[in-house]
Amino acid sequence: MAQYLAQLDRVFVALTDQTRRAVIRRLGRGPASVGDLASEFPMALPSFMKHVRTLEESGLIRTAKSGRVRTCTLNRERLALVDDWLAEQRRIWQERTDRLEQFVTETAKDQP
Amino acid sequence: MAQYLAQLDRVFVALTDQTRRAVIRRLGRGPASVGDLASEFPMALPSFMKHVRTLEESGLIRTAKSGRVRTCTLNRERLALVDDWLAEQRRIWQERTDRLEQFVTETAKDQP
Repeated sequence: MAQYLAQLDRVFVALTDQTRRAVIRRLGRGPASVGDLASEFPMALPSFMKHVRTLEESGLIRTAKSGRVRTCTLNRERLALVDDWLAEQRRIWQERTDRLEQFVTETAKDQP
Repeated sequence: MAQYLAQLDRVFVALTDQTRRAVIRRLGRGPASVGDLASEFPMALPSFMKHVRTLEESGLIRTAKSGRVRTCTLNRERLALVDDWLAEQRRIWQERTDRLEQFVTETAKDQP
């Protein structure tokens, strides 16, 4: 559970930045080399590499080096953590709605 | 668009913290006063109030004061920003899958 919460922390941290969200969107269209990715973003390579590392630490992307080229791939499964968290919230809201409906129904029954 | 991106930034920042996510979960069961909420979390009130303010700035919760009691309410619509962002990613993945399928189909047609 503690590991799950820490993973979710890192995923949300990764998603707080517009550049990192744009990288995720870009990798959704297919894998790309760090060089090609970096050329699409108006910042110095060291700054861009920091974003890549944050994404990699969150598990949202994977990188693999072949020769001199490092290729980035999206790890969709990790984004499912966010889906799961949202689904949990919706379940809680639904339970509340169900309780409110039950209360209203029972109150109506008690009316003369 | 810039405003939407800034809102999304603030929502993801609010979600990076386990205490703030727990407050969202708690408020999913119904509104609560800051005092009642704070008593459920093992931290000093000033620290807790910082989390409440971050949540309020993100738009994920609303607070209203009546007499000496400040009540917090969840703003579900703001959480829909995250749903929308995830849906956009899924659309991009689907387009990629469609393109790959089209490529495979056309390649198969060209075979003798």
